[in-house]
Amino acid sequence: MVGGGRGAFIGAVHRIAAAMDQQIDLVCGAFSSNPERSKASGADLFLAPARCYGAFEEMIKSEAKLDADQRMDFVAIVTPNHLHFPPAKMALEYGFHVLSDKPATFNLAQAKKLGELVRKSGLLYGLTHNYTGYPLVKEARDMIGAGKLGKIRKVVVEYPQGWLATRLEATGQKQAGWRTDPKKSGAAGSMGDIGTHAENLAEYITGLQIEELAADITAFVKGRRLDDDGNVLLRFKGGAKGVLHCSQISVGEENNLNIRVYGERGGIEWHQKEPNSMLVKWPDQPMQVYRAANGYLGSAAKAATRTPPAHPEGYLEAFANIYRNFAAHIRARNEGRNLGRNDPALDYPKIEDGIRGMAFIEAVVKSSKRNAAWTRLEVKK
Amino acid sequence: MVGGGRGAFIGAVHRIAAAMDQQIDLVCGAFSSNPERSKASGADLFLAPARCYGAFEEMIKSEAKLDADQRMDFVAIVTPNHLHFPPAKMALEYGFHVLSDKPATFNLAQAKKLGELVRKSGLLYGLTHNYTGYPLVKEARDMIGAGKLGKIRKVVVEYPQGWLATRLEATGQKQAGWRTDPKKSGAAGSMGDIGTHAENLAEYITGLQIEELAADITAFVKGRRLDDDGNVLLRFKGGAKGVLHCSQISVGEENNLNIRVYGERGGIEWHQKEPNSMLVKWPDQPMQVYRAANGYLGSAAKAATRTPPAHPEGYLEAFANIYRNFAAHIRARNEGRNLGRNDPALDYPKIEDGIRGMAFIEAVVKSSKRNAAWTRLEVKK
Amino acid sequence: MVGGGRGAFIGAVHRIAAAMDQQIDLVCGAFSSNPERSKASGADLFLAPARCYGAFEEMIKSEAKLDADQRMDFVAIVTPNHLHFPPAKMALEYGFHVLSDKPATFNLAQAKKLGELVRKSGLLYGLTHNYTGYPLVKEARDMIGAGKLGKIRKVVVEYPQGWLATRLEATGQKQAGWRTDPKKSGAAGSMGDIGTHAENLAEYITGLQIEELAADITAFVKGRRLDDDGNVLLRFKGGAKGVLHCSQISVGEENNLNIRVYGERGGIEWHQKEPNSMLVKWPDQPMQVYRAANGYLGSAAKAATRTPPAHPEGYLEAFANIYRNFAAHIRARNEGRNLGRNDPALDYPKIEDGIRGMAFIEAVVKSSKRNAAWTRLEVKK
Amino acid sequence: MVGGGRGAFIGAVHRIAAAMDQQIDLVCGAFSSNPERSKASGADLFLAPARCYGAFEEMIKSEAKLDADQRMDFVAIVTPNHLHFPPAKMALEYGFHVLSDKPATFNLAQAKKLGELVRKSGLLYGLTHNYTGYPLVKEARDMIGAGKLGKIRKVVVEYPQGWLATRLEATGQKQAGWRTDPKKSGAAGSMGDIGTHAENLAEYITGLQIEELAADITAFVKGRRLDDDGNVLLRFKGGAKGVLHCSQISVGEENNLNIRVYGERGGIEWHQKEPNSMLVKWPDQPMQVYRAANGYLGSAAKAATRTPPAHPEGYLEAFANIYRNFAAHIRARNEGRNLGRNDPALDYPKIEDGIRGMAFIEAVVKSSKRNAAWTRLEVKK
Repeated sequence: MVGGGRGAFIGAVHRIAAAMDQQIDLVCGAFSSNPERSKASGADLFLAPARCYGAFEEMIKSEAKLDADQRMDFVAIVTPNHLHFPPAKMALEYGFHVLSDKPATFNLAQAKKLGELVRKSGLLYGLTHNYTGYPLVKEARDMIGAGKLGKIRKVVVEYPQGWLATRLEATGQKQAGWRTDPKKSGAAGSMGDIGTHAENLAEYITGLQIEELAADITAFVKGRRLDDDGNVLLRFKGGAKGVLHCSQISVGEENNLNIRVYGERGGIEWHQKEPNSMLVKWPDQPMQVYRAANGYLGSAAKAATRTPPAHPEGYLEAFANIYRNFAAHIRARNEGRNLGRNDPALDYPKIEDGIRGMAFIEAVVKSSKRNAAWTRLEVKK
Repeated sequence: MVGGGRGAFIGAVHRIAAAMDQQIDLVCGAFSSNPERSKASGADLFLAPARCYGAFEEMIKSEAKLDADQRMDFVAIVTPNHLHFPPAKMALEYGFHVLSDKPATFNLAQAKKLGELVRKSGLLYGLTHNYTGYPLVKEARDMIGAGKLGKIRKVVVEYPQGWLATRLEATGQKQAGWRTDPKKSGAAGSMGDIGTHAENLAEYITGLQIEELAADITAFVKGRRLDDDGNVLLRFKGGAKGVLHCSQISVGEENNLNIRVYGERGGIEWHQKEPNSMLVKWPDQPMQVYRAANGYLGSAAKAATRTPPAHPEGYLEAFANIYRNFAAHIRARNEGRNLGRNDPALDYPKIEDGIRGMAFIEAVVKSSKRNAAWTRLEVKK
Repeated sequence: MVGGGRGAFIGAVHRIAAAMDQQIDLVCGAFSSNPERSKASGADLFLAPARCYGAFEEMIKSEAKLDADQRMDFVAIVTPNHLHFPPAKMALEYGFHVLSDKPATFNLAQAKKLGELVRKSGLLYGLTHNYTGYPLVKEARDMIGAGKLGKIRKVVVEYPQGWLATRLEATGQKQAGWRTDPKKSGAAGSMGDIGTHAENLAEYITGLQIEELAADITAFVKGRRLDDDGNVLLRFKGGAKGVLHCSQISVGEENNLNIRVYGERGGIEWHQKEPNSMLVKWPDQPMQVYRAANGYLGSAAKAATRTPPAHPEGYLEAFANIYRNFAAHIRARNEGRNLGRNDPALDYPKIEDGIRGMAFIEAVVKSSKRNAAWTRLEVKK
Repeated sequence: MVGGGRGAFIGAVHRIAAAMDQQIDLVCGAFSSNPERSKASGADLFLAPARCYGAFEEMIKSEAKLDADQRMDFVAIVTPNHLHFPPAKMALEYGFHVLSDKPATFNLAQAKKLGELVRKSGLLYGLTHNYTGYPLVKEARDMIGAGKLGKIRKVVVEYPQGWLATRLEATGQKQAGWRTDPKKSGAAGSMGDIGTHAENLAEYITGLQIEELAADITAFVKGRRLDDDGNVLLRFKGGAKGVLHCSQISVGEENNLNIRVYGERGGIEWHQKEPNSMLVKWPDQPMQVYRAANGYLGSAAKAATRTPPAHPEGYLEAFANIYRNFAAHIRARNEGRNLGRNDPALDYPKIEDGIRGMAFIEAVVKSSKRNAAWTRLEVKK
């Protein structure tokens, strides 16, 4: 693991996600650029001091020298955005699979380079767009893929939060600090941090790609250097239209990612804050409430739960689904097994999703600078 | 009453709204342009045949000749959009107050003329933007007006319906017919029919005016001549931003007008489909659920309910609030009483709201034709 | 109308319910035992002073002397419980139909007498167990009647309120005063006031009769003379079992009547506070959300709405459904028309429901005095 | 671990709960009485074959012989009810702490014996009444303990499920099989399996003990030997009253444990199916929606979450809280640290809770046999 030392938020989430299904052992880490702090963090986790490194470079080199059955199997990257690319690049170069927190990189150019590296190396790369790990998100994707809603016409995807409604970064709060710093976060604030989750969710569920967008992003809090709110008109390939908006100044909203999709024959609605329910809407029948873990769900949704209906699973389990699938993919590789096209082990976000996320950020920023002019979301070579 | 003969929808709603509080008697009507049909409709309502007219012109002229204590006190107009202006104009010219269904007129030019007439005549003009009749909508307006949410930053207002997801107008369905006909409905379809309600609600609650907008409207159903869906970016005077979207092709949505407003210190959320609850959100306290008719509400909200808490009131009661206030205003006029600035009798939408609604429609259509270019919502003389 | 003078709650509700559908005109009243107060109350309602009586006896006698097309068609009784029987009895004796607030009478013996009188007179008697006026309550009854849920096994019906959590009657509050006074309210407090609504709702929806019950009722507030809370085990004829509990000390509950019914094949759940939704549950399919006014509903539910889906109707409309049906029944009588068995005009609570309600109250009180011993709910001659 | 071999449900839940926080390693198991099956189950979990035992007796004896730093620290028991007592007893006798699935034992007599053993041995015993592991359950307990709701008057606790609405045990389904078999499940069916959770939750949250109860339990499904539904009147020490009902034939209900508690000054409501929200009700203020992980919560609730607000945690996390606290208690013991009275490490259900659960089952069965006569819930020596 790179990053995730004492006091970090997402590092602990990754570790719980990795541990939950008892398929993955944390064996080493460069938890902090301060070697002592890294060792202390590792000690909290019952790791051998020798495998608690002060720098990711050291970790990768050292682990690469170990015997194949001793060395780490993959690298998990849980650093702030500007530090995603360097360890990912190096890990791939040294032959390690990579599971990275999102966004994939600091900018689109890096993401394309990383894509190139992944293709060349033949190694696996996973990205924790964790919200696609929820069982009912998978059910929505499968329903739409099977044509149950008919041709998609409209998509509304939202990600409101309220935690940055004041200038929290001025108080020294670590999470707020790097997220509002253009040098660490990238070209966008809220749009990079959470808008990309909304973009990824919309494309994952609908199977459609955003073709162009018109964005109006704003930094409402005085002195803030990156957007903390944004509203975007969407046009998808094939004719669907929609709205994406995200916010970190919507006071009182916790982490309310949600999506509604309407096709010619039906609609779906899902909210991350109560993730075990999904509303399914029909023109002339009562609305249905799909609930996770029930027998009427498809195989992808079922594979993504661990318990019977109404034993609610949540954020950590959705996150763990990415780890579990990624680990299953590595194991299949190691054992030389081929996986079927719909094998759950293949169901995790990949570098292509990362590249689209970076392209989304750049298109949003570009559009907004041009007063919300329509801007294409394209990933050219 | 002008319009509202057998088979009409909104005419019956107006009559229930007028009757509910026992302050208004329906005394005459031009329910249909077919005199026999008008008489039959009037007979259903226990009206004297002599006061069931075949044309609004006849009604206005005949009633004007009656003694003051016999003639009608005001005209209610419940016709399709293109027939709002002529009877309103004539009624005002003959000295009758007018209560009209929305939108005020067929286009902005007519609305401005009507505004001129209202001002000159000194008569009362009310517009049934009925959703502002709900008690918790009034509470939201008062909370924001009192600064409880701080300066407003973001507004999300939606009005999704699904009933026009197929080409219902081709089946002879009357409501669908005129609403999708540019000659009867006006320049916009969904944006005129329901988008204006959303616009009115957002301006009523926030007390802010939309300054400019960028709209992308669409006719998704093949062969349809007016928009059945639209997404709009909003910028308000003073710096707030937002999103307005409405739809008549969002399959499975009934009539789900809803709004969220976020200020620097708090937020509110209200849904028309469960109108007796409003969520109030704070940065560091639990969300509150305001419920209609409770003692902790302000005077405007209290004046808008008839029963104790959890005796749910709904659409018809909200509609009736406009009639009740309008009647109270007329009565005060007739009795020579002056009303205080905050008297509930003054709390109903007026011609100025109608003019802004028409300006909204024209701005949306103009913006969308120019590929969602920013367009000012202005009401110049 | 008997009762319902200035300051009364339920009288105003009855008047709105009667006025809403424009089928009934209020023509006279004995609004108060104080003649001047009665006249003043009548004046508020634009009634002729000559028909505002100081006593119900005077009203009934005077009206009976009027010509058939002038006199009132029926009497609405909206007095406290102890004053239900006398005017109902007299009205029937003078040939007037009666629509009474619930409970039907002060005790079971009176209710049986009234039943006798109704039978002998051939006149119509309606009882405003208004919660059965909701469209989705009718849908539930029809679904169960048609066997869609299979044989019923379990019923949970609740009616929690919180408004009597303190000794409100000691403050002079009028509503609290008579409801907690054994001389005016009858043998039970909460169980009579709201428990009977729960009992009536359960029997109406399931079509099953409570056979025996075990009740534990309590007066939690010090000094209160009647129960303000009660818990009851139910056994229905045919083997279903259940729980009924009601409360007026459940702080923060508004008026939350709700019911769940489970059969061998399905279940339903309905809450009065959001009355336009009903949950329908199946063993191996997603839960459905039935919404009022939709095309998939049965005829009884459809007949009980006035507006399209998601134009929420509420308590007053449900109440008005009883008035509308009762008026339609009278009109059919007057016109000599026979009504089909399922005609909506017959769908209102009758004296038999009133008698069962009184028997319920007496059984509950008897059981509780015997430490919750099983007690039969029987209506012997 | 004793039990939990391939195909078991609760064993996997325990393992996830133990693994999640990376404080506990599974080191050995008697997963099945079939030694080969036990080894195979252990292999699935990457365990050394030598520590996969064919019987719990063998496991306990063998582990006891290992060096202190090699042997297991405690035994987790995840077998059907009739097999809880024997391994618990033996583990304690050999000096191992015990964490057992509920109910504690097969009957009350065994539970008392176990209590005696725990006291004598000085070892730790935990019971996975996992629903008390939810953060908002802890918040409810703390609010009530601090007197925020005033003296408690009424408790409504429910646990409806629908999965046994048909005779599933006749199909060979393993979970249904033992749960409906008096030899394996004990004296009660639904009341033992889920009613005890409701009883435990009510006592945990309110801090009150049930003094006596009147129960009416039923086996609705033909041929079933144990109750699948039951309704119970409750009287608590100190005067509060309430209702407890549970069901396994409430078609369409998943696992809907929920509770409402009303005191003199406020009320709370919590539902396990959406466990991250709790409604808090006041007499004259809007209802509040408490959400897990927010800053306004107390220390116990905060200690029970791993992620920020609206990163929903669920059943597995609540379960894991018991494991985490139990492990922390063992570690404190091993390290000779004393824990403060409110240390989260002490917050897990203990043998006393287990004994009360068994007493509850016996009282319910006894009461129901005597036609719901009041029966005391007493734990005499």
